[in-house]
Amino acid sequence: MHEFTPPLAEFLGRAAYVQLTLFEGLSRAVSTAPTTAAKAAIGQAADISIGKHRALAEEIARIGGSVAEAMEPYTHAADDFERRTRGADWYENVMTCYLASGFLDDFFVRLASGLPAGERDRVVAIYSAESGEPFLAAELSAAIADNGRLAARLAMWGRRLVGDTMLVARAALPLDDHNRGDELRVEPVFTELIASHTRRMDALGLTA
Amino acid sequence: MHEFTPPLAEFLGRAAYVQLTLFEGLSRAVSTAPTTAAKAAIGQAADISIGKHRALAEEIARIGGSVAEAMEPYTHAADDFERRTRGADWYENVMTCYLASGFLDDFFVRLASGLPAGERDRVVAIYSAESGEPFLAAELSAAIADNGRLAARLAMWGRRLVGDTMLVARAALPLDDHNRGDELRVEPVFTELIASHTRRMDALGLTA
Repeated sequence: MHEFTPPLAEFLGRAAYVQLTLFEGLSRAVSTAPTTAAKAAIGQAADISIGKHRALAEEIARIGGSVAEAMEPYTHAADDFERRTRGADWYENVMTCYLASGFLDDFFVRLASGLPAGERDRVVAIYSAESGEPFLAAELSAAIADNGRLAARLAMWGRRLVGDTMLVARAALPLDDHNRGDELRVEPVFTELIASHTRRMDALGLTA
Repeated sequence: MHEFTPPLAEFLGRAAYVQLTLFEGLSRAVSTAPTTAAKAAIGQAADISIGKHRALAEEIARIGGSVAEAMEPYTHAADDFERRTRGADWYENVMTCYLASGFLDDFFVRLASGLPAGERDRVVAIYSAESGEPFLAAELSAAIADNGRLAARLAMWGRRLVGDTMLVARAALPLDDHNRGDELRVEPVFTELIASHTRRMDALGLTA
């Protein structure tokens, strides 16, 4: 994967903006949570996500960049993702947060492999810190246990999301569309990311 | 003010839920920010606010409470506030965040004066940590400088907000409506809080 790692400033600008978008999704789910318990649980996931954004923003500042300017060129793919993955209700929105955060955090930690060593270790540490995934999985599992029809709907939604989420990841890769070799070298990474996606669906008792 | 301080569990439940509501307002402003720079700036304020919520939630856990259960009885006043103070646009919403966060953080730190000493010191430390106010003031000042008509509109909005914000504070006070003495003893606190509100309006060049 290291051969596709973009220059440091680009990596950090994209990763910080993607994390801000993931945080926004979580904070909308906090606002619209059906119970105070759900609000508190999703609030913990939102807190963890904005913590990651802040840590990435601090890396941008460390290399002398402005956070807003560093993110600006890379807002398009994440904004598109946000528009295309608005769910029909709260549960679909939490599912989007759960699957997209998992997939994209996995992706960026792998993409960090080609960064200069000190920077790579700090970025890996940011992504390896606490994850909001257990809070989201617990809310979704409880909702599915209460409502059999929700399981079928969320399984469909999960399958749909993977394509839109992959587009965000692919936008971060400087692939030459005419180079079949690039495709072949990236392929195994996406195979692994989709295996993790399947594991996340399994954790909810859903078929990916 | 210490004579009106509610029992510790009630204080923490209310303060944590109010802070979560303030965070929600900020995170909506992140999502709808007109520029990436504004998104990054309001994101910093949202991060600080959810950090305060988390710290208050940790105090609830310290006394053996469940965060959701501790907040549940006190959601009404903050939810009402949220409904009544939705602005007509992004600038009014940021104004709500700026004024309400300032007023209510001031209020809860004063109300903490009657808590048991160790707890009081920890709560005061939570509210005395970094504030998101400068980030919000900077965004609003820049917008006002660009648009003279906005100043008049935000001045009106700021005057309207103070009433709704005071209702959230008053809901936290165990006042006996038939006891004129209670009113008289609380009055000077609100006079101080309104003076700080006026200072926040002044900071934007607006008349309170």
